[in-house]
Amino acid sequence: MRILGIDPGTAICGWAIVDKERHESLAVDYGAILTPGDLPAAQRLERVYDELLAIIDRYRPEYGAVEKLFFGQNTKTALAVGQARGVVLLALSQRQVSLVEMAPTEVKQTVTGYGRADKHQVQLMVTRLLHLPKVPKPDDVADALAIAMTGLEWVKYREVLRD
Amino acid sequence: MRILGIDPGTAICGWAIVDKERHESLAVDYGAILTPGDLPAAQRLERVYDELLAIIDRYRPEYGAVEKLFFGQNTKTALAVGQARGVVLLALSQRQVSLVEMAPTEVKQTVTGYGRADKHQVQLMVTRLLHLPKVPKPDDVADALAIAMTGLEWVKYREVLRD
Repeated sequence: MRILGIDPGTAICGWAIVDKERHESLAVDYGAILTPGDLPAAQRLERVYDELLAIIDRYRPEYGAVEKLFFGQNTKTALAVGQARGVVLLALSQRQVSLVEMAPTEVKQTVTGYGRADKHQVQLMVTRLLHLPKVPKPDDVADALAIAMTGLEWVKYREVLRD
Repeated sequence: MRILGIDPGTAICGWAIVDKERHESLAVDYGAILTPGDLPAAQRLERVYDELLAIIDRYRPEYGAVEKLFFGQNTKTALAVGQARGVVLLALSQRQVSLVEMAPTEVKQTVTGYGRADKHQVQLMVTRLLHLPKVPKPDDVADALAIAMTGLEWVKYREVLRD
């Protein structure tokens, strides 16, 4: 089973391809789509979309995992992340990758066993669980890996329920 | 000069093609992209994107106009509109349609002469200025027409400045 975890953003969009065979998870590839700050927002979104389609076409994941988003008072951030999330959902839908969405607390809970874990704890656990040589940078990549691993647990759980 | 005005949304996305020749503005075509509420968000975004590309390819506008967005406390709305706005900006960028953005108050000011006009006043003025038989429905269509007309004024103004 192969999943693509995504942490959407216009400046930095983290992504991670993770496979699960029996009880072992394997980070196949991961990285960040970076777009230049001097480009207009529409062109930055186009870059994110193009690179994401290339990643999907290369690795052909069955599932795509993204966080449900909750924002406090910062509507400006909500709008910017929303725009990036829009092109991410579009790319997944166009390639018929099944979407898995989960709350940020669920990602923390799944990866560390504690729903209020801090960012650093999540990153350390992801690095350990996937046997990575060091914590992936930038943070968006480690987040995408955590999202992918949580997505795999969700899919597995749903399949158990179905059987 | 031809412009496409867009009022982005996932459930309803208003659009309007308006031409300007000398001092006359002409509403060439306008409508709303409606997506079924029982579809997942990603598929609704895909419909908006597909229909918008078809409109761009049919009418080949030089410019695309959208409002800059400002939200009060409602981050949930900001996220949903942001997602729709993301696929709209993507479609415009992919077809190399020049983006024109303006504040909602600028749209009101341009169409009615008063930056704090209400929705109804804007709709009536748009209907009158474009010699339409009646106020277009739903509101998103009338909004898209107002955005298109304002966009045309902005482009004209920039061209005057350049000369």
